[in-house]
Amino acid sequence: MRGLILAGGKGTRLWPLSGEDYPKQFLALGKEGSLLQRTVSRLQGLDMLIVANQKHQSLVKEQVESPFIIEPVAKNTAPAIALGLKYWIDRCGVKEDEVCVVTPSDLYFGEDEDFLRLLPSAEKGARQGAIVTFGIVPTYPETGYGYIKTLEGEGILVVERFVEKPDYNVAVQFLEEGHYYWNAGIFVFQIGHLLEEFKKHVPEIGAWMKLPYEECLKEFSSLPPISIDHAVMEKTEKTLLVPYPSFWSDLGSWNRLADALPRDKRGNYLSGDAEVIDSKNCIVFGDDIVTVGVQDLVVVRSQGKVVVCSAKDLSRLAELQKQTY
Amino acid sequence: MRGLILAGGKGTRLWPLSGEDYPKQFLALGKEGSLLQRTVSRLQGLDMLIVANQKHQSLVKEQVESPFIIEPVAKNTAPAIALGLKYWIDRCGVKEDEVCVVTPSDLYFGEDEDFLRLLPSAEKGARQGAIVTFGIVPTYPETGYGYIKTLEGEGILVVERFVEKPDYNVAVQFLEEGHYYWNAGIFVFQIGHLLEEFKKHVPEIGAWMKLPYEECLKEFSSLPPISIDHAVMEKTEKTLLVPYPSFWSDLGSWNRLADALPRDKRGNYLSGDAEVIDSKNCIVFGDDIVTVGVQDLVVVRSQGKVVVCSAKDLSRLAELQKQTY
Repeated sequence: MRGLILAGGKGTRLWPLSGEDYPKQFLALGKEGSLLQRTVSRLQGLDMLIVANQKHQSLVKEQVESPFIIEPVAKNTAPAIALGLKYWIDRCGVKEDEVCVVTPSDLYFGEDEDFLRLLPSAEKGARQGAIVTFGIVPTYPETGYGYIKTLEGEGILVVERFVEKPDYNVAVQFLEEGHYYWNAGIFVFQIGHLLEEFKKHVPEIGAWMKLPYEECLKEFSSLPPISIDHAVMEKTEKTLLVPYPSFWSDLGSWNRLADALPRDKRGNYLSGDAEVIDSKNCIVFGDDIVTVGVQDLVVVRSQGKVVVCSAKDLSRLAELQKQTY
Repeated sequence: MRGLILAGGKGTRLWPLSGEDYPKQFLALGKEGSLLQRTVSRLQGLDMLIVANQKHQSLVKEQVESPFIIEPVAKNTAPAIALGLKYWIDRCGVKEDEVCVVTPSDLYFGEDEDFLRLLPSAEKGARQGAIVTFGIVPTYPETGYGYIKTLEGEGILVVERFVEKPDYNVAVQFLEEGHYYWNAGIFVFQIGHLLEEFKKHVPEIGAWMKLPYEECLKEFSSLPPISIDHAVMEKTEKTLLVPYPSFWSDLGSWNRLADALPRDKRGNYLSGDAEVIDSKNCIVFGDDIVTVGVQDLVVVRSQGKVVVCSAKDLSRLAELQKQTY
């Protein structure tokens, strides 16, 4: 089995912690090692390939030893996956009946072992001709995730449909109804199967894949910037879902990050050489920071900025980054 | 009339804003210009001399154009004043009957004009053979200041005694009794008069002053490290006091600084390129800082450190500096 890791994301939503030059996947958040390093370690034993952005080439080299290719421009997940598969086939002689797991590089798993344990049943589904996705058992009505609805069943489930990010009331309804899972963007498939799906649903990618790899690189920028969800998953016929039952987060916002970070006895999370004195429920990122007598604060020192934000106002940081900086 | 400005202080109590390399007198606190610059401007029209520490020579040059001398080592205020007077007499031909005001360089005056207006009556007292001190009308039972007790009277008052920093109950009693003033460390005297007092009360300084200036510099380190209060003011016979009625502070602790800083409508004080969003009663020192949705906080970014401290815990910063850094 092979692992294709998508590391080209911009991940600017954790400003000022992340930024275009230093996106989320390269940060150590909540556990040791960067999210990319933990992704590689989660897939250990698989033949891996990382698809990264030119800008982050040196970060990738620094952080992991796995082979990687550079996508000529950022074109969303479908072209990035197509490029990775094309590289494997043309340059590494990978066969089309091999099974591959595609995963983002910036996801947070509470229990990496739980993921590993589920991988064989996903592989089995893929060998039976399905595209298999991991669905996270939702624990609250998150409006920032896409959902996947399945039919009733046990073990590996049959996907009924993919659902765009819902508004709050709809998300509440999903949780009440059941059979809805968070879309983690992790897919397992036989390589030939996905190539067929590309041909069927995204003819531009289908045509492009017939070129030799060097040509593919040159023509990459002409591909439509489309996600694998829109390009294939929402259209393909046989999709299965493996439910992942433990804590998971895409850390895609400050609030979700704050929920995911492990806390000490006083509710604090420290990253870097910081000190919290008589402080509780604080998150502190950065070096040479001291807090005294404060609570429910997030303090971030990164990229030359210092942000001090109350926990209740974390959602405003994303707007701040867009508007001001 | 002449002005002798003592700028050799370490002023480390506002850590991390101040430090040994960058003491308080060189910081702009609450108003435009550093405290040293504002001291020079408060005395404008007088012939000034600044006594500074070697370490801060370039800061003094950067900030003001007034002449200055460097004390060979820090020896508290009595030797520093003696050195300044000696320089004036030996190098500038200053006469012993000239009147001089000695002032620290790190005091905060709410109304500089009120100080200026009182200077002539202090000079008059000095010409009549007294050492005249400025006494700040106390507004609360501060335990961090020395007090001066006067006899009853109006206008310029007769000093009964100097009192060490009291504990809280004693300070409360002082305010109830009245006739107690805060000792601001500002003294006005005829130069010859203070020289006589040195001879009488600190024979080491008396003997030292007979040397030529170059020798004085060489022998300076042998002088006892004694304050002008202990050396002279607590012992001299005729001392008068001019009450200063407006806001004043030595900014000698974070709490006193917080009380002195002017606030905007939301109770915030910003120094530097900072932004406070939905924040109130916050003090922010430093550049590239953003606060969101917080209150009653002091955020300081200085000397490579970031400190986030609740307003109620400001007194702990001084301890922190001593213990940890």
